[in-house]
Amino acid sequence: MRVQTIQNFISEDFLLSNDYSQQLYEQVRDLPIIDYHCHLSPQEIAADRQFENITQIWLAGDHYKWRAMRTNGVDEHFITGEASDWEKFLKYAETLPYTLRNPLYHWSHLELKRYFGVDELLTAHNAREIYDHCNQLLAQPDFSTRSLLEKMRVEVVGTTDDPLDDLSHHAALANSDFEVQVLPSFRPDRAIMIDQPGWKTYVSDLEAETFEQLLEKLEERIDYFHDLGCRVSDHGLETLFAINCTRQEAVDIFNRAYQTPGRAMLLPAEVNSFQTHLLVELGKMYHERGWVQQFHLGAIRNNNGRLLRQLGADVGVDSIGDFNHAKGLSFLFDTLDETDQLARTIIYNLNPADNEVFATMIGNFADGRIPGKMQFGSGWWFLDQLDGMTRQMNALSNMGLLSRFVGMLTDSRSFLSYPRHEYFRRLLADLFGRDIEAGKLPPNLDWTGKICRDICYFNAKNYFNFHL
Amino acid sequence: MRVQTIQNFISEDFLLSNDYSQQLYEQVRDLPIIDYHCHLSPQEIAADRQFENITQIWLAGDHYKWRAMRTNGVDEHFITGEASDWEKFLKYAETLPYTLRNPLYHWSHLELKRYFGVDELLTAHNAREIYDHCNQLLAQPDFSTRSLLEKMRVEVVGTTDDPLDDLSHHAALANSDFEVQVLPSFRPDRAIMIDQPGWKTYVSDLEAETFEQLLEKLEERIDYFHDLGCRVSDHGLETLFAINCTRQEAVDIFNRAYQTPGRAMLLPAEVNSFQTHLLVELGKMYHERGWVQQFHLGAIRNNNGRLLRQLGADVGVDSIGDFNHAKGLSFLFDTLDETDQLARTIIYNLNPADNEVFATMIGNFADGRIPGKMQFGSGWWFLDQLDGMTRQMNALSNMGLLSRFVGMLTDSRSFLSYPRHEYFRRLLADLFGRDIEAGKLPPNLDWTGKICRDICYFNAKNYFNFHL
Amino acid sequence: MRVQTIQNFISEDFLLSNDYSQQLYEQVRDLPIIDYHCHLSPQEIAADRQFENITQIWLAGDHYKWRAMRTNGVDEHFITGEASDWEKFLKYAETLPYTLRNPLYHWSHLELKRYFGVDELLTAHNAREIYDHCNQLLAQPDFSTRSLLEKMRVEVVGTTDDPLDDLSHHAALANSDFEVQVLPSFRPDRAIMIDQPGWKTYVSDLEAETFEQLLEKLEERIDYFHDLGCRVSDHGLETLFAINCTRQEAVDIFNRAYQTPGRAMLLPAEVNSFQTHLLVELGKMYHERGWVQQFHLGAIRNNNGRLLRQLGADVGVDSIGDFNHAKGLSFLFDTLDETDQLARTIIYNLNPADNEVFATMIGNFADGRIPGKMQFGSGWWFLDQLDGMTRQMNALSNMGLLSRFVGMLTDSRSFLSYPRHEYFRRLLADLFGRDIEAGKLPPNLDWTGKICRDICYFNAKNYFNFHL
Repeated sequence: MRVQTIQNFISEDFLLSNDYSQQLYEQVRDLPIIDYHCHLSPQEIAADRQFENITQIWLAGDHYKWRAMRTNGVDEHFITGEASDWEKFLKYAETLPYTLRNPLYHWSHLELKRYFGVDELLTAHNAREIYDHCNQLLAQPDFSTRSLLEKMRVEVVGTTDDPLDDLSHHAALANSDFEVQVLPSFRPDRAIMIDQPGWKTYVSDLEAETFEQLLEKLEERIDYFHDLGCRVSDHGLETLFAINCTRQEAVDIFNRAYQTPGRAMLLPAEVNSFQTHLLVELGKMYHERGWVQQFHLGAIRNNNGRLLRQLGADVGVDSIGDFNHAKGLSFLFDTLDETDQLARTIIYNLNPADNEVFATMIGNFADGRIPGKMQFGSGWWFLDQLDGMTRQMNALSNMGLLSRFVGMLTDSRSFLSYPRHEYFRRLLADLFGRDIEAGKLPPNLDWTGKICRDICYFNAKNYFNFHL
Repeated sequence: MRVQTIQNFISEDFLLSNDYSQQLYEQVRDLPIIDYHCHLSPQEIAADRQFENITQIWLAGDHYKWRAMRTNGVDEHFITGEASDWEKFLKYAETLPYTLRNPLYHWSHLELKRYFGVDELLTAHNAREIYDHCNQLLAQPDFSTRSLLEKMRVEVVGTTDDPLDDLSHHAALANSDFEVQVLPSFRPDRAIMIDQPGWKTYVSDLEAETFEQLLEKLEERIDYFHDLGCRVSDHGLETLFAINCTRQEAVDIFNRAYQTPGRAMLLPAEVNSFQTHLLVELGKMYHERGWVQQFHLGAIRNNNGRLLRQLGADVGVDSIGDFNHAKGLSFLFDTLDETDQLARTIIYNLNPADNEVFATMIGNFADGRIPGKMQFGSGWWFLDQLDGMTRQMNALSNMGLLSRFVGMLTDSRSFLSYPRHEYFRRLLADLFGRDIEAGKLPPNLDWTGKICRDICYFNAKNYFNFHL
Repeated sequence: MRVQTIQNFISEDFLLSNDYSQQLYEQVRDLPIIDYHCHLSPQEIAADRQFENITQIWLAGDHYKWRAMRTNGVDEHFITGEASDWEKFLKYAETLPYTLRNPLYHWSHLELKRYFGVDELLTAHNAREIYDHCNQLLAQPDFSTRSLLEKMRVEVVGTTDDPLDDLSHHAALANSDFEVQVLPSFRPDRAIMIDQPGWKTYVSDLEAETFEQLLEKLEERIDYFHDLGCRVSDHGLETLFAINCTRQEAVDIFNRAYQTPGRAMLLPAEVNSFQTHLLVELGKMYHERGWVQQFHLGAIRNNNGRLLRQLGADVGVDSIGDFNHAKGLSFLFDTLDETDQLARTIIYNLNPADNEVFATMIGNFADGRIPGKMQFGSGWWFLDQLDGMTRQMNALSNMGLLSRFVGMLTDSRSFLSYPRHEYFRRLLADLFGRDIEAGKLPPNLDWTGKICRDICYFNAKNYFNFHL
């Protein structure tokens, strides 16, 4: 295969199918980015890390790419194993042409183009040349982590942090002259998952020996996070449950789980009640502080036990689950709304079959004060691609107010993933542009443009209590 | 924002993307309307009510609009509260531009255009002018409820009525010179929901003290309804169950529920068995009388307890649920089919993820006598929009015979919602028109036109035993 | 209705919406067919059967057509009953125009055109003429079953066979000069379904009186099948379960089920554990022999008890179910992967709402050796149409590698269904062609063409251990 360019592919008008789309994209192209939820390393930002080579920054932490390579028949040696960085890059270059129609094909070429100016399609044939070219650039100061963020006009980076984290890097960054706000998010999954092996140790590390202490310690950490600019929590759960328990029952379940030598046998109903009770109590704390609470629902993680043992968690062997979410969502939100303690909330859905459940559920808990208080988050993980984002936005449009949507986030571990905001903006502009061309919306580019700008930037700016 | 017109938006060819679509629409545009299921007030038709202002006819009962306003941050005061009708209208006018891509944006402008001749996009800027204009028209005799129905060529209005209703308004209408048939539907939800707080009182009101009496009283009411022209029943349920019980068990469950002071604790299996048993018995009664039975499945209602207490049921805090329907549908229909007592049946689905389950289930119970005996109803409630209706028709096309579809119904509480039939007809014509243009169907506008006309009018006319 | 031709409908460029699509289709049009899973009768191939008339070959075994006729109000007499073959054909001809937008409309006309050169749309008006024309051709030697397969360039036919089958027709074919490989598949559903009425008899016929014997006998049959060229197993199940049992428990469940006079009452958990345990053991046997294991999941069969009694199983009263598949799939594959005994696997999904669950699940169990080891099978049964196949390929594209897809299979009982491979190839070419035209893929027809050729033929050729 000879070398191909991306000229007729990732062009100026990439994804913009008509004039309206192009004009709308013009209005949002240069807006700053509020990346309110991602998994970037605060340590690497604080250290202003330079990456040795493109494998380190592009492949080393990216389980999407690992998964594609495995599916393509590449041995683990070249993915997470002992092979050299160059060998790993080459294997990815061999795999990339086989990812046609997968989001990796777009993302990878967009990233090579936007950060490194690569105008060719990456294959085994030009891999060495592109590898060297990128590595040369990565050695320049303007390819440090901070420079990469600034280059993309990122205003806020919302990292994802464990309650036990000391947030020293966030503190260091707050005291530095770095202008991008790097803010922690509070993700207490390990305190909530009472049926998981590590729970007892984790609770001990929190220095909580009773349920009341668990609440106290978590609230202390919430305050600690708050002082360092945190205004967002996050929870990763398979699903929520339409079941609660009394405080006394929660105390009993806690005690049994905590005091039983080894691992206590809890009934599913006990686990679910305990989790719900704790989420309700946390929800009140978030509400009191004006935080936004996030729920990432629907993943089945670490399906491959062999790779879990070999490589650890989150290595690209996760799946979309098929849970029943509706009654659990309703129950949690209604419980908190009853006492007017429901915080602004974003729910993220992993199974597109559930989009309409999510899109309608948020409509039940508006409070008549905050426009778009309840949010259906952008297409997440496997759904973070054209189809997935389109379906999320169509469901939200049909069943709620797209105009109040807080828009895109990277949810990424990679410093090179900011072109996904460009991708989103092009898609959004095209959705509206196509509707106008089809006569489904009036050709009013002022108002439609305002809505697009809101979704790409201003809604998030107004929604989160970040101090911008 | 300056005033915009709808000229390039709701034009002659609105939603009709090519010549074939336009020609097919010509064939169905002027057909009468059989609105076989809606929630219009028979009292207001009997009284030939005139509405004081557009807020009364357009906003006062419309929980779709309430929901959008709440999501947009409007206080309940301006939605269902003490604010003046003008203030409420203004708040809706402020909200409407934020509903871009929501069906409300199309519906609202279509309604203003078709009933009131409004050619502008409604915003806060022209709200006063449009308010006054509409109110002036509403004072004219040809804006009474009856006139509004006649203007839209409505032939049948199928209202939704409780078994205890005396149907006096239907009787009055039958004896009047009003030419639109206003027929009751039999909706015995309150008799079926044995686990709901009001059940015992309801059954007492029916004067049934035993299960056998319950069947007798319901059958008496069915006959009463039948005499007043009713040929349709309706059931709103979360889902159906693949479980039945013996008559003796039904009797026992009834007795326990009826005789226990306060509220009896019934097991879910008992509730489900009782409901199924009762639905089977009712199904036989419907079949005997040549009725059509309808099932509206999949909603989770009244999620917001605070608004439920404050405003009552059905105030716009309902959701799409994620139930498992397949085995329950199969069980009920098979049970009735076993003895050849399965009435013509329409099932309505609220979660588009279940469309294919519904579309295939109806195919199992055709009886070789009535074309399209089992119907998958049109996109319902949240799905009553372009995407939802398209997906319902595509599922039905792929897995059954779209040609035998009884088509659109408003399912509405509003006298201004008949342009939804126009909306449906445009969409339907465009589905076929696009397929022809893409070479997926032969360019035979006679036959395709006949199919479109059937779906828009003649299938319903033949399917229901209304005496037209 | 006058006679219409298919000229502007099933044209040269049927389904090919632009030049790219047409050029890509050129590259795959004439490739041979590996039909790795179908339900053709090996006896009819061995006998090189000639069909008396088109009703025999086209309607007699086709429950898709039966279903459509029933829905259209045709009496069973004309479908599976005593009516003459001509009467049955006429009734189908009357029904066909009502199948607009159903896949039958495309399939039926494609089949009449490709096999019989019929250029008209079949209706009641030209039915007699077309009936006679087709029957005349069917009497020719080149319309025997073998000739029909050769005409379509079929290289492999994978039939579906019971473990107890003696495969005498396969043996006869292997020893004949017929060049198409007709290979058996091993489908042990009846041994697995321990809760079904016929299980005990079936196990007796296998001469297994203990669980260990059941495993031995099944393995003997696997070896027997292997010797006759079988390299594929198949399982039809509602769903898989995330539950296993010890060998001792499996033995106990077997014994209870086998030894209880009449039918043993097994708990669902027992049935599910037993099935899972047996599937794990079978999976190891398949893996050892380099077979591909297939799972067809999600159907609810024989919903209509009346027609089941009257006509038997598989008569067109089956439905798409709504099961939860994710955890069961994960459990079975992970269990087998733990000991590196997971065979190459194809999972087929019947409910499109589950496409993304299936598409992501396969990505967890790649082994870094076989490209595309885990396959998400093509749109199956009700989903074997444009929408269904498109959604399956879009899900696979977005969440995996479409490039490694083994592509189309007929899964059919009919010797006339091979144009479905043409249908698939046109659709596939158009998916890529549209993406190129929209600028979503580079206009590289060499590489995209290679991917299309792989999907249509070479991937299957490499994936299955057939000796081609």
